[in-house]
This record gives sequence, structure tokens and C-alpha cells, in this order.
Amino acid sequence: MTDQKKAVVLLSGGLDSATVLALVRDAGYTAHALSFRYGQRHVVELEAAARVAEALEAAEHKIIDIDLAAFGGSALTSDIPVPKGRDTKAMEAEIPITYVPARNTVFLSLALAYAEVLEARDIFIGVNALDYSGYPDCRPDFIAAFEVMANLATRAGVEGQAAGAAPIRIHVPLIDMNKAQIIARGSDLGVDYGMTISCYDPGPAGAACGACDSCLLRKKGFTEAGLPDPTRYQ
Amino acid sequence: MTDQKKAVVLLSGGLDSATVLALVRDAGYTAHALSFRYGQRHVVELEAAARVAEALEAAEHKIIDIDLAAFGGSALTSDIPVPKGRDTKAMEAEIPITYVPARNTVFLSLALAYAEVLEARDIFIGVNALDYSGYPDCRPDFIAAFEVMANLATRAGVEGQAAGAAPIRIHVPLIDMNKAQIIARGSDLGVDYGMTISCYDPGPAGAACGACDSCLLRKKGFTEAGLPDPTRYQ
Repeated sequence: MTDQKKAVVLLSGGLDSATVLALVRDAGYTAHALSFRYGQRHVVELEAAARVAEALEAAEHKIIDIDLAAFGGSALTSDIPVPKGRDTKAMEAEIPITYVPARNTVFLSLALAYAEVLEARDIFIGVNALDYSGYPDCRPDFIAAFEVMANLATRAGVEGQAAGAAPIRIHVPLIDMNKAQIIARGSDLGVDYGMTISCYDPGPAGAACGACDSCLLRKKGFTEAGLPDPTRYQ
Repeated sequence: MTDQKKAVVLLSGGLDSATVLALVRDAGYTAHALSFRYGQRHVVELEAAARVAEALEAAEHKIIDIDLAAFGGSALTSDIPVPKGRDTKAMEAEIPITYVPARNTVFLSLALAYAEVLEARDIFIGVNALDYSGYPDCRPDFIAAFEVMANLATRAGVEGQAAGAAPIRIHVPLIDMNKAQIIARGSDLGVDYGMTISCYDPGPAGAACGACDSCLLRKKGFTEAGLPDPTRYQ
């Protein structure tokens, strides 16, 4: 039996993180998937995450409760309306109200805690610098700075490097891909995107609104990839 | 009325963070205290944090639930026994089992989310590089790396700096102080240390064990400061 390496994979239930999980499995890692119940309005995404974790044979799927809504400040965790029907230019022009304060920082910190307990060195997150909807914590500079910090923060970083072990790495395999490329790559690996939910404002049964930034980017991706869009729209 | 600056202060209910809160108030900030229910065995510390926040006139005190115990791996969040009666040399020799994986990274990330919503730029944490009980995430290098990351992670960091606003700062006012100096400074500012709990393994009514690393460092601090120790021991 080969000695499979462990990886922690942040899994939202969306299209990007499902693709990341498929890439991680394809690379031969044992995948420990991590999702968050963080006060988001669209909790159907957690059901999607569970389906994806099972379909792509994650060794484990943990859902951690964390009350980001206690701080307020985002359309995704409060009553502020989700913007609809914006063009790509408008999305790129500013940090949108769907931005959850410090979300990727918080999620990666918890992934780091999980990795440390598992003695895993590899953390995967599906951030994307192209179709990234304007979030500051999706940029390569942020990821690089987080990685430096992570290696100073942890027992694994400190003792591991002293003992010559590999450093902790934050992997961002989608960082330079556009949505169409992500969809094409995942489809090659057999990802069933009908299981995933990208919508910021889905109906109670999980049907997508088709008009928020995330739905618009996703639709455009399937069109550009020349693949059928399996998303259920309202 | 003066325009008071807002600060986020991590408040554990222990001696160090109570001193930090007193320093923050003395410096004229409005203090927004933040504590965590993170699966710790010693939840009496949250009652202590609430007492301290009130006594030192924090504007707000939020307690956020976060289930670090779901990951396991620490004597503070699991059934692993807390070590007792160790000398200072033994404490310094290794990262102890009371280390909670990536704890300060997780706590500072949530403080960053809170600061972002408050539009605060100043985050205070009572870490200490001297009597630090061997935790990697209490070192100055870690704090500096976190600060760099925080300014790349957030809307406040990105838009604020573009607009010429002050960067986000992680303040560590106790970093170079020993326990005796911390106690002396806090006593000058009127901190009632009888309200605080440092013990890793307190009794149900909050009485300290007197023998864990944290109790031993605290006792030594009062002795060296030449001040009476108001701690209730079992």
C-alpha cells in the first residue's frame, strides 16, 4: 500500500471547491474536507458539500460551526440584499457587499488547526484570481502571506522545519484558471456539477437564482467551456 | 467630545488579557472585547472575562462559539491530562500538550473579522515572549507575519491603505514583559486580579489548581512583583 499523503480541503459546496477536491484526489492525497456553518443564508450549500465529499471519496468531512454573523457586515450573513444582474465590469470595480469580513482568513486558520491535528502539511483552497468577484482575500499575495504566517504559527511549522520536514503549504490550484477552464478540468475528472451550488441567494430547495454575481459567472463558465449547464435554476 | 479610536481586545479572562484591556482603556481607546467558547475545559474563564470587561468598561463584549474541540489534539480541549508541577525549564523545553492547534491564528482571524466590521484598525492581544509557556503562536515573528497577512486579507487593508488610512495593527503590549512586570503595571492601573482566572484545570467553582504551568507562572509573578496574590486556590 502506498503511503498516501493527507490533505485538508476547504469545501464550500460550490463549483470551485468541488473541482479542487477532484484534483486533490487525482493527485493521490487522502482528502479531509472541511466546511463551515458560519451564519450564511444559503445553508443548502452544506448539503451540497456533503454530497460532493461523498461522491469524490473524501476520507472525512467535518462541518464546523462558527458564528460570523455575530459580527454582521455582509449580505451573505445578514439581511442586506444580494445584488443581482451586474455585469462583469461592475463586479470587478469594487469589493462587493457579499464579501464576508476576513472569511478566507478565518477558514484557512481553521484549516490550519485541522491540518496540525492531522499532521497534514497540505491545505487546498479553491480561490481564483480571475473570476474572483472582487474579494481581497482571494489574491495570490494574500495566500503567500498566509503561508508564511502559518509556518510561524504552528507546532508543525516550528518543530517540523527544525526536523527537516516539509513546510505547511497553502495550495491554490485554481488561482490562474478562469471559470470555463475550471469547469473543463473538473468535467475531465468526472465531477458532477449538478451536485454543486454556487448561488448567493438560492431558493429553499436549493434552486439557483440565476442573477447574482456567482450565478452569472457560473453560467458564463459553462457557455465558454461549451458544456451543458446542469444547474437547477428557479 | 473627543473622537475615541476603537480597538478590538482579545480577552480570555486571564491575567494577561485583563492587563491589556486596562492598557487599552488607559490609552483612550473604546474597547471591543472578544472572547471565545472554543471547547475549552475551563469555561469559568468566560465568566471571568465578562467580569473583567465590565469592571474595565469595555464598550462591548462578544463571546463567539467556535468548536476547536472538534479537531481534538490538545489537553485544553480534550481528555488528555493537564501536566502539573513542572519547573520553568521543563516548560521552555518543548511545546506543551496544553497547546491548542493554531489557536492564536484562529482567534486573531476572528478579531480581524470583528475589526473589519467595526472599521477598527487596532487589535490587541496579550501574548508574551518571555513567560510564554512554549507556544509557537506567541512569538514576535508570528505576530509580525500575521499583521502583514491581515493587511492583504481585508477590505480595510486594501481600500484603507489605497485611501491613505492607517494600516491594521496587531498590538502586543506585553510581548517583552515578564509576569511580575505585567502584574505591577496592571496593579498600577487598578486591575483587580482576583477577578481573573489563569488556571488550565480549575475546580467547578473556578478555584485554581495551583500546580499547572499557568498557575506556577502566575504565582511566581506575584512573588517577584512583591504583591499579594489574590487568586483563590483549591
